[in-house]
Amino acid sequence: MPPISVRPAFASSVRALTHNATPRVSQLTPRVSQAISRRFKSGPYGYTQAKALVYSQNGEPSDVLSLHTHSISPSLPSNALLLRSLAAPINPADINQIQGVYPSRPPFTALLGTAVPSAIAGNEACFEVMRVGSGVKDFAPGDWAIARAPCLGTWRTHVEAQEDSLLRVEKEGLTPVQVGTVGVNPTTAYRMLKDFEHVGEGEWFIQNGANSGVGRAAIQLGRLWGMKSINIIRERGTEEETEAMRNELRGLGATHVVTEGELMARGFSEQVKEWTVGGRQKVKLGLNCVGGKPTSAMVKCLSDGGHLVTYGGMAKAPLQVPTAALIFKDVKFSGFWVSRWSEKNLDEKRRTVGEILELTRAGMFADVPVQKVQWDWDTKEETLKEAVTGTLQGFRKGKGVFVFGDT
Amino acid sequence: MPPISVRPAFASSVRALTHNATPRVSQLTPRVSQAISRRFKSGPYGYTQAKALVYSQNGEPSDVLSLHTHSISPSLPSNALLLRSLAAPINPADINQIQGVYPSRPPFTALLGTAVPSAIAGNEACFEVMRVGSGVKDFAPGDWAIARAPCLGTWRTHVEAQEDSLLRVEKEGLTPVQVGTVGVNPTTAYRMLKDFEHVGEGEWFIQNGANSGVGRAAIQLGRLWGMKSINIIRERGTEEETEAMRNELRGLGATHVVTEGELMARGFSEQVKEWTVGGRQKVKLGLNCVGGKPTSAMVKCLSDGGHLVTYGGMAKAPLQVPTAALIFKDVKFSGFWVSRWSEKNLDEKRRTVGEILELTRAGMFADVPVQKVQWDWDTKEETLKEAVTGTLQGFRKGKGVFVFGDT
Repeated sequence: MPPISVRPAFASSVRALTHNATPRVSQLTPRVSQAISRRFKSGPYGYTQAKALVYSQNGEPSDVLSLHTHSISPSLPSNALLLRSLAAPINPADINQIQGVYPSRPPFTALLGTAVPSAIAGNEACFEVMRVGSGVKDFAPGDWAIARAPCLGTWRTHVEAQEDSLLRVEKEGLTPVQVGTVGVNPTTAYRMLKDFEHVGEGEWFIQNGANSGVGRAAIQLGRLWGMKSINIIRERGTEEETEAMRNELRGLGATHVVTEGELMARGFSEQVKEWTVGGRQKVKLGLNCVGGKPTSAMVKCLSDGGHLVTYGGMAKAPLQVPTAALIFKDVKFSGFWVSRWSEKNLDEKRRTVGEILELTRAGMFADVPVQKVQWDWDTKEETLKEAVTGTLQGFRKGKGVFVFGDT
Repeated sequence: MPPISVRPAFASSVRALTHNATPRVSQLTPRVSQAISRRFKSGPYGYTQAKALVYSQNGEPSDVLSLHTHSISPSLPSNALLLRSLAAPINPADINQIQGVYPSRPPFTALLGTAVPSAIAGNEACFEVMRVGSGVKDFAPGDWAIARAPCLGTWRTHVEAQEDSLLRVEKEGLTPVQVGTVGVNPTTAYRMLKDFEHVGEGEWFIQNGANSGVGRAAIQLGRLWGMKSINIIRERGTEEETEAMRNELRGLGATHVVTEGELMARGFSEQVKEWTVGGRQKVKLGLNCVGGKPTSAMVKCLSDGGHLVTYGGMAKAPLQVPTAALIFKDVKFSGFWVSRWSEKNLDEKRRTVGEILELTRAGMFADVPVQKVQWDWDTKEETLKEAVTGTLQGFRKGKGVFVFGDT
């Protein structure tokens, strides 16, 4: 075996070799060697040098996050794997978790050798397996994996994890960013469209936050399943930008794209009636990540017996539910939390992720726009923290994703 | 056959005779004859003289209701029945219907010979069959019946109705008021406890408006099914009255009775935790007829995965649903409307009503307190309208129920 610290960069750079081959450093091209030297530090006695964004107390990410350097022992417990991160997104929930306002929280431990017990930030990533313990059955070096459940801590270069905390992913034809972002947003969209009301072919759903990761996934999956969609976006800075966004979402398969202003204007429900052939086509499902008054307006567009599923609350205002909508229109209100769903439905999560990635491979499911943030060995703590703060302020060009080394 | 107009008073007064017997007027006791003369006018040629509370436009009951006298022909269509009313409650929904703020509305017709097309008020009653058309299969004279669905118009002395608009009820051991009030409130309580979440033995539900007809039915049915209950009432005029109400509801089987003020006070959720053995016993279901802030406080008492079912909105304020309750606590919000349910689930309604009446017969299900309003032939329009207005203002001693003649 070559030194552990060489392996990962190799695996993603020299795809022609199988992951079971054991190349020597001398086999690597100069570009790869350089990439390795940018990213990895090989410690003494085969230890892997690693870095992680950690916090020892809850607060604003800019105040509490710090970049911690540590070593990972070469001796693995039998059911454990050593993984390196290829891509790890910055989701809003990750930030809420750091702030301490999110119900699922990673443990604060001294396992990474921090001065005080700390938690590792991040919940989603695409990993590559570097080494496996003697009792590991389903993974081999070179395989790709995602976290089964939240709180694994993914904003770090390397993870030593138990086999049962991971799901293996077929990597052929996929990029680390595609795999690293499939488990939260597209999975949320998939389950919300499937698990609450049966929206048949030619029937409708309505959603807000339509340009978000979940929204784009819902547009595409809904279109593949024969659903029509009414998609609400906030007004952009200029009319041209709003029009560009409309076109972008129509390109993904949105039937109609309207602004929040248009939704709230008088007569919108008549517009919906017209689109749905006088109400004969039902609007069975609403997907809500906003809350407050704009969501009440959206509820009015649902057909009798419709179902509003809430998965976010960007407006930070509670939902106003009129009694009459509950009793006489029989509208139902539920929430969806992909973390809870994932923990309870492991096999179904495996199947869902597999199906979405199959569509991605087939070119039928477009990537969400991302803003890559390079994380190399020498990358400064401030750069990484700024990426987190940037997500907090809403990256203009897409979701922030840490990409590691040369991936 | 004796004159039609004699039959009904007989049937409910002289129980020893079977309903198939055809007594002569001379068989009746003086008291019964007197009752008949108080109530009925026999028109010429066998016509039945009848009265009905009707309205030709929506508005406040005191403004728009009028007492209309008309005749019913002795010749019945083959699938029709002639019924006389024994008891008809005044439900809040009946009043909302007159006001025009209720989604299900009776037709405005000229069938009763009103000067302008009119609707007949009332939705629930216990009827007695007087005569049946030649094609009627499931009813015989003397049988009792309730309406299958709303909008039959029940605030009237007599009804000519199609067989398929009625449900036959076994009258043995029951009073007209028990039968005339079973189809809305107890049925609502029964279905809400059964159809939304499985509340197992030793598990809890919480409800507001606990002293209402639905609330009392839920307490009793829940207790019979092994459920525990937290029951919220509004503060009464005096502490003694509040205490008396607590004792009354505890007597029906309420586990705990609390006032709205106690519910809204700090620390109430700790109290609930104590009652539920540190939360190990789940509070799975909430029944809501209030809305607004007190209902938000009630939602906080639900366990994760709990379900709030709304069947009324006495506070006339929308429900505030915090995003976190939907996503992280997985609380679901639905409505229940017994009218819609009844129209869609006829067999189940027959079974539900039958089961509740069986419990009533067995002395296991107590009547809701009522304030009887006698409706005789000579009763003045003003008296009847005042009863409706009284319900609007909230009768202090129980639900208003029209009782006809000597029933």
